[in-house]
Amino acid sequence: MWKGIIDHYREFLPVSDRTPIVTLNEGNTPLIFGKNISSRLDGKFKLFFKFEGANPTGSFKDRGMTLAISKALEEGSKAVICASTGNTSAAAAAFAAQAGMKCMVLIPNGSIALGKLAQALIHGTIVLAVDGSFDDALRVVKEVTQKYPLTLVNSINPYRLEGQKTAAFEICDSLEGRAPDFHFIPVGNAGNISAYWQGYSEYFKLKKSDRLPRMMGFQAAGAAPIVEGHVIEKPETIATAIRIGNPANWQKALSTKEESKGLIDKVTDQEILEAYQILAHDEGIFCEPASATSLAGFLKLHHQNFFEDRKKEETLITLTLTGHGLKDPDRAIKTAGEPHVIKPRMEEVIKWM
Amino acid sequence: MWKGIIDHYREFLPVSDRTPIVTLNEGNTPLIFGKNISSRLDGKFKLFFKFEGANPTGSFKDRGMTLAISKALEEGSKAVICASTGNTSAAAAAFAAQAGMKCMVLIPNGSIALGKLAQALIHGTIVLAVDGSFDDALRVVKEVTQKYPLTLVNSINPYRLEGQKTAAFEICDSLEGRAPDFHFIPVGNAGNISAYWQGYSEYFKLKKSDRLPRMMGFQAAGAAPIVEGHVIEKPETIATAIRIGNPANWQKALSTKEESKGLIDKVTDQEILEAYQILAHDEGIFCEPASATSLAGFLKLHHQNFFEDRKKEETLITLTLTGHGLKDPDRAIKTAGEPHVIKPRMEEVIKWM
Repeated sequence: MWKGIIDHYREFLPVSDRTPIVTLNEGNTPLIFGKNISSRLDGKFKLFFKFEGANPTGSFKDRGMTLAISKALEEGSKAVICASTGNTSAAAAAFAAQAGMKCMVLIPNGSIALGKLAQALIHGTIVLAVDGSFDDALRVVKEVTQKYPLTLVNSINPYRLEGQKTAAFEICDSLEGRAPDFHFIPVGNAGNISAYWQGYSEYFKLKKSDRLPRMMGFQAAGAAPIVEGHVIEKPETIATAIRIGNPANWQKALSTKEESKGLIDKVTDQEILEAYQILAHDEGIFCEPASATSLAGFLKLHHQNFFEDRKKEETLITLTLTGHGLKDPDRAIKTAGEPHVIKPRMEEVIKWM
Repeated sequence: MWKGIIDHYREFLPVSDRTPIVTLNEGNTPLIFGKNISSRLDGKFKLFFKFEGANPTGSFKDRGMTLAISKALEEGSKAVICASTGNTSAAAAAFAAQAGMKCMVLIPNGSIALGKLAQALIHGTIVLAVDGSFDDALRVVKEVTQKYPLTLVNSINPYRLEGQKTAAFEICDSLEGRAPDFHFIPVGNAGNISAYWQGYSEYFKLKKSDRLPRMMGFQAAGAAPIVEGHVIEKPETIATAIRIGNPANWQKALSTKEESKGLIDKVTDQEILEAYQILAHDEGIFCEPASATSLAGFLKLHHQNFFEDRKKEETLITLTLTGHGLKDPDRAIKTAGEPHVIKPRMEEVIKWM
């Protein structure tokens, strides 16, 4: 019986017999073979999507949160706090509820997706909508935790990235020890790319995988501080989950890029939305817009002939889809249009066939 | 590597080597121990929630749809059609997209949850919003499939229930062969309760489980035709997924009730919303309102001392949570209220601590 990532990967995580495990049976998410997209690429590439939307709160954040909340409980903390573009607050709210801890989340007012707002609210969390950006919210949260005994559960909390690295373990396990050649991943607050790298590196050292992938991070063009090399004061992108101008894990992401011989690049909102629709139309996968950044990045590089030197080898690509499309229903409807209204008669249906 | 329910439970399903498998790696969903609710019930009950919201399209419908679409493809069908309160259309749209088949869905206009509408639209399906109820939509769809060569993928398609029975297999596997004493489940179109019963029965016959559970089905009070014993012309409930007045699998549900010595009862919208909030507040589980019908049913019977004769035994209860809370974000926000808006300053946060 799958009992969550701490139970399954205990030996790789900073827990002991004294750690109370707070879990929603997160992890164990599907690695979906992108059959249709792969077959259009002349058989040279095998694309696998790590669909993190299948986690209990609908995003990869559950992996880090089970560990952060379990450790906070072990250390006697009574309350947790975080800033969030939506996915972190959803996970914090759910795991804190399960642990019986108080929880406070700060979100940028008016700019998180509807589903994520619903998640923050439904678990009984105190939800504060800050007149400002995510970066403002994170700054305030840091100030609060320096003065008051709340545990910070943003990804500067080291347990978060320790939990998130298990997604890389699962990929290698799913592929029976064959690590990917390239791993594509969206970059927002920039913690997840280094968490995956840590996971791949630990597994490789233990000979549980056969190679190290190159880590390919992608930011949204309007919120690409790492690519531009400076803080973005007013980040703008439809990919709200990665609308961050001053990433907390900036330096870690740069180290990951260098160590893995990878890159950190950017894609436009239009490229993101195209990839978002390709996933839905061609593979039946509905992810949130920010998630599609990974496929948009791959397609951009593919069009640029980036992979030309790999002509003769089959290349195994994994792409993280960070969150479920249900997180942001408005974007889907805006993208796809409204339904056609008809009377309940067969003739009316036939007109549309 | 988990490759979906057909791959994993192939020997129990009507597939052959010629069946092309259309899968999104559905199934393998978490069975979450309801630690906090169970501990409040004096140690007499162990409640486990089968969280079907962790399926790729966020509901249990994926289990039946992988089989229905795979078989339709095997049989040479080019297009599928269904009526839906939302979850079936989401699954049909996604699996048809993966299969490269045309898909048409009929939904009751204005009364499906926002997330489900987004799902139907994003996969490139033809979405027709019928001025009428789900029952009207199903009637029209049946007429269309009698005249035109589209495959009907509502649960009157026998492959749907065959796929859905795998949830019962997974529960027995998760509990290492210990089947539950009671299984609680929402009843709408009434197919799932008989699918679970079929699954439990097949496993028991093969000695893969140690007992047969009593199947406890619950309808919403405003849409309870099976309980009332007659068709409901205008079904009304906030649990939109089970807002059905003339269930397609009515007789099967009654047989299941009798064979399993179970029952089919009803709960009010208020009881459903209470259970919905208990799950979110106490266990950190966010399901759609209709899903909470199973817990509402258990709590109703518990208050009525239904389980009194089991005083001395520990009773193992499983409850199906059919779909993710993200399917219906509006209901969550309506239930939980709006966030507090603040300026990005520490003093403002401290006021709310």
